[in-house]
Amino acid sequence: MNAPLRLGIAGLGTVGASLARLVEARGDTLAPQLGRPLRVVAISARDRKRDRGFDMDTIAWHDDPVSLASANSVDVFVELIGGADGVAHESVRAALESGKSVVTANKALLAKHGAALAALAEERDAQLSFEAAVAGGIPIIKTLREALAGNRLTRLYGILNGTCNFILTRMEAGADYPAALKEAQALGYAEADPTFDVEGLDTAQKLSILTSIAFGTKIDSESIYVEGISGITSEDLTAAEELGYRIKLLGVAQRTDTGIEQRVHPTMVPRDCGIARISGVTNAVAVEGDFIGSVMHSGPGAGGDATASAVMGDIVDLARGVRVPPLGRPAAELEPYRRARMRAHEGGYYLRLMVRDRPGAFAAIAQHMADAGISLDSIVQRNRPIGTAPKRGTERDQPVTIITHSTTEEAIRGALANIEAGGEVSGRPQMIRIEAL
Amino acid sequence: MNAPLRLGIAGLGTVGASLARLVEARGDTLAPQLGRPLRVVAISARDRKRDRGFDMDTIAWHDDPVSLASANSVDVFVELIGGADGVAHESVRAALESGKSVVTANKALLAKHGAALAALAEERDAQLSFEAAVAGGIPIIKTLREALAGNRLTRLYGILNGTCNFILTRMEAGADYPAALKEAQALGYAEADPTFDVEGLDTAQKLSILTSIAFGTKIDSESIYVEGISGITSEDLTAAEELGYRIKLLGVAQRTDTGIEQRVHPTMVPRDCGIARISGVTNAVAVEGDFIGSVMHSGPGAGGDATASAVMGDIVDLARGVRVPPLGRPAAELEPYRRARMRAHEGGYYLRLMVRDRPGAFAAIAQHMADAGISLDSIVQRNRPIGTAPKRGTERDQPVTIITHSTTEEAIRGALANIEAGGEVSGRPQMIRIEAL
Repeated sequence: MNAPLRLGIAGLGTVGASLARLVEARGDTLAPQLGRPLRVVAISARDRKRDRGFDMDTIAWHDDPVSLASANSVDVFVELIGGADGVAHESVRAALESGKSVVTANKALLAKHGAALAALAEERDAQLSFEAAVAGGIPIIKTLREALAGNRLTRLYGILNGTCNFILTRMEAGADYPAALKEAQALGYAEADPTFDVEGLDTAQKLSILTSIAFGTKIDSESIYVEGISGITSEDLTAAEELGYRIKLLGVAQRTDTGIEQRVHPTMVPRDCGIARISGVTNAVAVEGDFIGSVMHSGPGAGGDATASAVMGDIVDLARGVRVPPLGRPAAELEPYRRARMRAHEGGYYLRLMVRDRPGAFAAIAQHMADAGISLDSIVQRNRPIGTAPKRGTERDQPVTIITHSTTEEAIRGALANIEAGGEVSGRPQMIRIEAL
Repeated sequence: MNAPLRLGIAGLGTVGASLARLVEARGDTLAPQLGRPLRVVAISARDRKRDRGFDMDTIAWHDDPVSLASANSVDVFVELIGGADGVAHESVRAALESGKSVVTANKALLAKHGAALAALAEERDAQLSFEAAVAGGIPIIKTLREALAGNRLTRLYGILNGTCNFILTRMEAGADYPAALKEAQALGYAEADPTFDVEGLDTAQKLSILTSIAFGTKIDSESIYVEGISGITSEDLTAAEELGYRIKLLGVAQRTDTGIEQRVHPTMVPRDCGIARISGVTNAVAVEGDFIGSVMHSGPGAGGDATASAVMGDIVDLARGVRVPPLGRPAAELEPYRRARMRAHEGGYYLRLMVRDRPGAFAAIAQHMADAGISLDSIVQRNRPIGTAPKRGTERDQPVTIITHSTTEEAIRGALANIEAGGEVSGRPQMIRIEAL
């Protein structure tokens, strides 16, 4: 039996405390599987006093995570502080500089500095692992980087933010957006300021990491098209249901002729497909490749224990001496990310318009669509839902729902601009992309 | 860049030919990810003449897989012959004996000789990999052995046989069992003799491998309780639908107080749960553990390309020098499998009885259930479906569907024996276990 693998954990929030308990409970019993026991030998957090459910007495305390990261007594630095920069970034760099392997759950850090950190890790012959940074307990990093490595991947898509999926699930059950958000906040699923989750930024960070591994490109979280769920209304969910769809906030990365699309937006998906049926805070990721066809993983996307399980998976690999390039290939081999222009995106679209009650309005809209070369799958004019109060002057406007055949984002945006300019509609048209699955 | 990893493939059926094409297409482009290219340098199959869609001219041909397995020119032996014994077993042993790593998709071989082969591999410092042996392209072996290794697993269950799931899916859509089986055969999903699939034996072999990794026990495919789908009728599927369930052939491994249950049987699962919604030939495996909660993977369970993708995942690990004990821990550390007695199994049950039209029959049945300490969740007496022809003398018997609360297999079997002996029913009662998910 080899000497214990000595872990230093910086950040003892829900995940860190859960991980410490896990190592305390299983550090010895795992030894036969790993060839060595696991020990937490050093910790760092803001508050030294709090009881976190594990024995801190025998563990060295560091006020400064950077000092922990460089301590000689530590073999593996586990960064659970969070944040793209500041002390999280500094301490991870310090650990790698000193040749220590790093395990982190920090999606923001990876999204911003992932390629540089991967390069540094390679240079120092250290490992950088981050299974927990995307989709919580679901082993999607390992699956992309290892199990599916033989495939030429064509698309991946996922529900990567449990908060948004919870809100949309509640809205499907009849809640309006503000009520569903409030419920999510009461349950601790959403922050007091929910912007980062509901506007799709969290999903985008995670997506950028998956894209890099799936397509062998440098992480580029700045080039992602991002649209959140705050503009989705109960009317959209009702219409989706009637049309045989569900609405999910998806992160999608897709190989196209002109580059790789990375996009985060509310998405209409066929009601019967696997991803449509993921409800509540659960996450799911589907991956499509030329040999595998399609596989989907689903499971807990957050939570202390599930995330600790993923961190532990990385630690297990390190203890066994498994070495895989952090992003699936040496950092120097990562290609620049070639962005596919969003305007070139192809797909079906759902549109919901309030059409003015005037002769020819409907015909004018149809003409604008035809002029843009867009052919229509269905048009439904529905009566205004009972109990909804129209704005003054729009009392007789009619909600119209349109599903288009596959077209381009450019064509749709052009048609909508012309429709708005033509004055045939009141308010902003709603537009939701349909994903062919 | 290191020297190529030289592969020898024995067995060039659908999977073998697909793998050879995959390596031909990607053996060089994967080199940056793996640190070395991949080459197929030797092959063996029954028919040397057949065109398999890859260039065989530059590849050494062996009539005898065992000679290929021991050839000095080969680094990794890929066994795709199939069968628990005979030449598949011999050649895998020969490869391991000579210190070569082995990749195999052979579930039967693993189910019978897995622990011994794992021990041999360790002894010779070789790797034995078999991701493709269970659930085709779904990376469930890697997930259990690596990603979830930190968890104390409590249960896993899965749809591990696409043939059965296809048949049940067709029966849900209205086909009867013989028609659904015929359709599966016509589509190539079922063999001319479908016994191995439909009677649950294929599922049992796969389950035994998962159980070993999940619970750290020796593979024991002989001790599995196995019941197939050939006794499932359209009436059962209709009743399940009405009661809010679906019927799936599941393989289930579960930790209990008295040991580990391994069972394969038609299972009623709540209609809204993830596994209920896996349709057609798709496979799915869910794993439950103390930290992860529950994760589910779904995807193609068979097919040349998807299976080749899984074999390639193993080859990728070998090329990268990843070394993990084949069954998750050294073979010497595997505990003996302690079988939980099936009679001690606890759960709800679905029963369908043809109750004789005589005074007191219904009351007698209820009394037998009460005597066995079984409490009932629901009893439904339904009219005989229109168009079904009763046997002579049973024209007025009434079909009764019972759902029990959680009880034991022993209690149910006792009650059913008493009911049959008492003469209150005609024909054999149907009994399907309900899985709490």
